[in-house]
Amino acid sequence: MTRVVGVIGGGQLARMMTPPALNLGLEIYVLAQNSYESAKIAISELGSHTDPDAVLAFARECDVVTFDHEHVPQEVLAVLTDAGVNVQPHPQALLFAQDKLAMRTRLAELGVPVPGWARVQSPAELDAFIAEYGSRAVVKTARGGYDGKGVRVVSSAAEVSEWFADLTGDDALLAEEFVTFRRELAQQIARTPSGETRVWPVVETVQENGVCSEVISPAPNAAGRIETVAADIALTIAQGLDVTGVLAVELFETEDDRVLVNELAMRPHNSGHWSIDGALTSQFEQHLRAVLDLPLGLTTPLAPWTVMVNILGGPLSGDLDGALARAMREYPEAKFHLYGKEPRPGRKIGHVNVVGDDLAATVAVARGAAGFFQD
Amino acid sequence: MTRVVGVIGGGQLARMMTPPALNLGLEIYVLAQNSYESAKIAISELGSHTDPDAVLAFARECDVVTFDHEHVPQEVLAVLTDAGVNVQPHPQALLFAQDKLAMRTRLAELGVPVPGWARVQSPAELDAFIAEYGSRAVVKTARGGYDGKGVRVVSSAAEVSEWFADLTGDDALLAEEFVTFRRELAQQIARTPSGETRVWPVVETVQENGVCSEVISPAPNAAGRIETVAADIALTIAQGLDVTGVLAVELFETEDDRVLVNELAMRPHNSGHWSIDGALTSQFEQHLRAVLDLPLGLTTPLAPWTVMVNILGGPLSGDLDGALARAMREYPEAKFHLYGKEPRPGRKIGHVNVVGDDLAATVAVARGAAGFFQD
Repeated sequence: MTRVVGVIGGGQLARMMTPPALNLGLEIYVLAQNSYESAKIAISELGSHTDPDAVLAFARECDVVTFDHEHVPQEVLAVLTDAGVNVQPHPQALLFAQDKLAMRTRLAELGVPVPGWARVQSPAELDAFIAEYGSRAVVKTARGGYDGKGVRVVSSAAEVSEWFADLTGDDALLAEEFVTFRRELAQQIARTPSGETRVWPVVETVQENGVCSEVISPAPNAAGRIETVAADIALTIAQGLDVTGVLAVELFETEDDRVLVNELAMRPHNSGHWSIDGALTSQFEQHLRAVLDLPLGLTTPLAPWTVMVNILGGPLSGDLDGALARAMREYPEAKFHLYGKEPRPGRKIGHVNVVGDDLAATVAVARGAAGFFQD
Repeated sequence: MTRVVGVIGGGQLARMMTPPALNLGLEIYVLAQNSYESAKIAISELGSHTDPDAVLAFARECDVVTFDHEHVPQEVLAVLTDAGVNVQPHPQALLFAQDKLAMRTRLAELGVPVPGWARVQSPAELDAFIAEYGSRAVVKTARGGYDGKGVRVVSSAAEVSEWFADLTGDDALLAEEFVTFRRELAQQIARTPSGETRVWPVVETVQENGVCSEVISPAPNAAGRIETVAADIALTIAQGLDVTGVLAVELFETEDDRVLVNELAMRPHNSGHWSIDGALTSQFEQHLRAVLDLPLGLTTPLAPWTVMVNILGGPLSGDLDGALARAMREYPEAKFHLYGKEPRPGRKIGHVNVVGDDLAATVAVARGAAGFFQD
């Protein structure tokens, strides 16, 4: 019997799970809200990820259910587990990717290095935190943030007064130390329900306006302590939180040589897109193997360097066909990934991967190829 | 507007075109006879490739139409071209992959090295041919043969008497010299309507019972004369026959050091499956680029050696899931490709690719991984 992997959410991550699902002889079913979403080829049901009936009906057709995003409410996930659905990662693990306060609390228990932080329920608590850590702090809503949304750097609680006003009951905001970092890193790991784990090389990520723009794999000058620390952190988190599937740990490398955990994602992640063309087993194939509790594949790089550059919609990026053809002509070595999404300014609509022996040349090709889509 | 590539036929070649179509931001539509076929995820219409109405209705939804197999009748192809459908490769080119007598005639005109051959319409003509070339000959039906079907080695015309009996009108059989070969090679090339071409390294292919079983890329000991001759032959054929898309040229390397053309396939081909994991641009991505007249990608190998071993259905190969899990555990470096087909003895149901630095070790891993599916 062909095994069916169900993916809740029809975005580009579900789309990019489709090629390895086909390779491995699997079927992939997607629950999406709209028929035109990025993963449209695999959509088997239309419905909302917040509708327990729709999600359960979808899940009953699948051997395992996993996710394109982290927005499925815990109440809906509970309906699935109560019905005996095989959900990977487990809702208890996924909670830590959904709730930043829960995540910080659990990471502190595990002894994982994190920026200074506090749970703040009032402007007074936040102002006290700011005073403790100098002149400013990062404030995050516990839930719902992504790509820089729900995150604000402030020097006074007054700058997030409306977030405090929106808090109800026992809700709180997360206040974090403003970390002066040398660079950002990301460490990906896959873990199966049986407990097998494999890490990819730690990568360097570059963000612009809170959105990932480039990834270099492996992170330059990370061999030795940094790569070991990053892999150890990811393993500690994956095991400590009982994560299954792919886990991405976003990290700060600080000016004073610490490695601190910034964010978690329990799914394939932008920081791992390089692996589609740059590693023996991509994050998408590994995620499928992991959620099915199949043995994991080697993550060995296929070249000394892989560089990923995101393609963001620009003001004039309507002619994707033309841009693709021009970029292909100029850069026959580039691997293009387009997500079938309408280009809107700043929206991630694809990425370019380039493998190479020389880092500077590889970066130049990847930027050059992605640049054609900005016209 | 997202471009739509239409593929006639729902087999594993259409299935394997789907991942690169997704990568490149394309839509892929498949016309298949049955909803359970290998490329089911991309099936948009059910219908026969011999039904001109069904094929035309399908084709009108597509920006370009290409093929999973070579069995679409010329009469049906004429309906498409008469209606202005963009068909790649062109029917005039495809004819040479459909009709072995037409192919041999045209290759002879182009001066491409081929085994001795003759068009034979009677047992007497065949017996004369056999006498001319020694004690035996290869006899082929002009149309309809694949994977060893429609091919027979004979020492007397009596051994194909029923084929002669089936001939009507001006039909004929193809008689060919029985070539004593050292090994078989295959040369793949892609060509766009604009005339751009790119070749992959010439590969060595091993057949068992007329079916491809292993491919080694590049062919060992082919650097220099052999690789140059093979690439020149493929380029001459691609240009001379006005082929677009991917062309596979099956070759004999003879005991007396000649390189002779055996068969042609105008589509991605088993001899190129290694390229999915072993080349910067796979045959499937290149075929899509070519039929859309997009610039072609580099075909650079990703490792010194890539070995492909086919997975054939065996007498006990019902438990594919178990075989896959066991093979993955033993060989985490192997890339598995399963086609979603019911295993039947001798049926191609998948393949394994392995890349490596050492040929003997790479062969051993690929055979070992594929071997799990034979139990």
